[in-house]
Amino acid sequence: MADDGLTCDGFLGGQLRIFQPAKGYRAGVDPVLLAASVTARPGDSVLELGCGVGVAGLCLQSRVGGLDLVGLELQPENAELARRNASGNGLSMDVVTGDLSQMPGGLRARNFDHVIANPPYYLRDSGTAANGTAREIALGEVLPLSAWVDAATRRLKPRGVLTMIQRADRLIDLLSACDGRLGDIAVQPLAPRVGRAAELVLLRARKGARGPFRLHSPIVLHSGEKHERDGDSYTPEIRGVLRDGMSLPTGWHAEIG
Amino acid sequence: MADDGLTCDGFLGGQLRIFQPAKGYRAGVDPVLLAASVTARPGDSVLELGCGVGVAGLCLQSRVGGLDLVGLELQPENAELARRNASGNGLSMDVVTGDLSQMPGGLRARNFDHVIANPPYYLRDSGTAANGTAREIALGEVLPLSAWVDAATRRLKPRGVLTMIQRADRLIDLLSACDGRLGDIAVQPLAPRVGRAAELVLLRARKGARGPFRLHSPIVLHSGEKHERDGDSYTPEIRGVLRDGMSLPTGWHAEIG
Repeated sequence: MADDGLTCDGFLGGQLRIFQPAKGYRAGVDPVLLAASVTARPGDSVLELGCGVGVAGLCLQSRVGGLDLVGLELQPENAELARRNASGNGLSMDVVTGDLSQMPGGLRARNFDHVIANPPYYLRDSGTAANGTAREIALGEVLPLSAWVDAATRRLKPRGVLTMIQRADRLIDLLSACDGRLGDIAVQPLAPRVGRAAELVLLRARKGARGPFRLHSPIVLHSGEKHERDGDSYTPEIRGVLRDGMSLPTGWHAEIG
Repeated sequence: MADDGLTCDGFLGGQLRIFQPAKGYRAGVDPVLLAASVTARPGDSVLELGCGVGVAGLCLQSRVGGLDLVGLELQPENAELARRNASGNGLSMDVVTGDLSQMPGGLRARNFDHVIANPPYYLRDSGTAANGTAREIALGEVLPLSAWVDAATRRLKPRGVLTMIQRADRLIDLLSACDGRLGDIAVQPLAPRVGRAAELVLLRARKGARGPFRLHSPIVLHSGEKHERDGDSYTPEIRGVLRDGMSLPTGWHAEIG
């Protein structure tokens, strides 16, 4: 850690060098998994809501290339780090400082092929959507997931694709936030081990589509039945995502481009 | 098929003989899977909403025994067949003819340890909860899933358990129907083959509980990667459920009694 309170961490096997605050939220594997699940192609426009220091967007730009990539970030310090991380890695990412619940005018005038988001996780003391939402609003600390999904949906082109990652125990809130503007809704569970309950879920939906909901077979993150003491235990597919910047073999990669 | 328009089918490897109409909805494996997933114990009170000719309730009574089992069925012909099937198999099941959205007074005065349901599946042309619900109501043919969940929740004792089976593409509607009265909500996906998207989901929730949502690892119904022409292809666990009346090894069997 340098004197400025930042660390510099390698992502994608060191392909990306990311400066981030040493304290508070620290980007881990979740934004990397999110980026690896997005079906964007070169030339597509992509908006990341709540981009933080830019890890998800930059991982996606690094893998796909040629994206018209924009990040929106509430905290000016993070937005500035995202700009620094983009230029430091020679990757194109336009970072706007602003609040997704009060969309800046420049973004309000635009629509995107893809919107991606890794909304902050926080503790809940309720297992139900209704209570959770009320509590989220009452706490006033974070936006409810419905605000993230609404802002994302508004910024999508017709047939544009929303991709989000979230803790599995928030799945009810996440699905409840998807209204009639979204279809082809698919959930990709991410399980820590074979046979274990999912800890994370990826959500994918298409604006204006009408296809049925799909619950895909889980992707397993770690080999073996329990934690091994030495070394990492990621499956070869996940190691390929985290170290080599491969795409994640989600159910929707097989189905729709 | 006899002259009365009925067939007599064996369930649980022939342990149960079930009379049902030859035409219209026919009970298959779904009510058997539902019954096998319920964590009821001898002495518990159990209400089945929309019990049809009684397959789920009677499979459950056959496996657990000693249940105070009540079925509610809208169609008098089905209710009468359920009574006939109960007595024909020497199993205790009290069948009430009535509408779950206008709960008969005798049931409105009671509360149960368990409520189970296998609501009718029907085609939807929408992938979203909001549209689906509107369309369900507009069609006027069936009750929305929210009416099933509401009626079930009202009939549960505090800490009582709801267990339902439904098509996986209805999961959003099913979860959206669970309000703050239910917690410890868990989804058990049932996938046709390893690696395939779920086609059915079991939902389990506890009245008045506050535990987080859990998305369990799928249970796979068939062995092999594709349909085999000869014989059935059920996994040993599923064959044990369907032929030998075993319980289904769901995630919640491991967790909570």
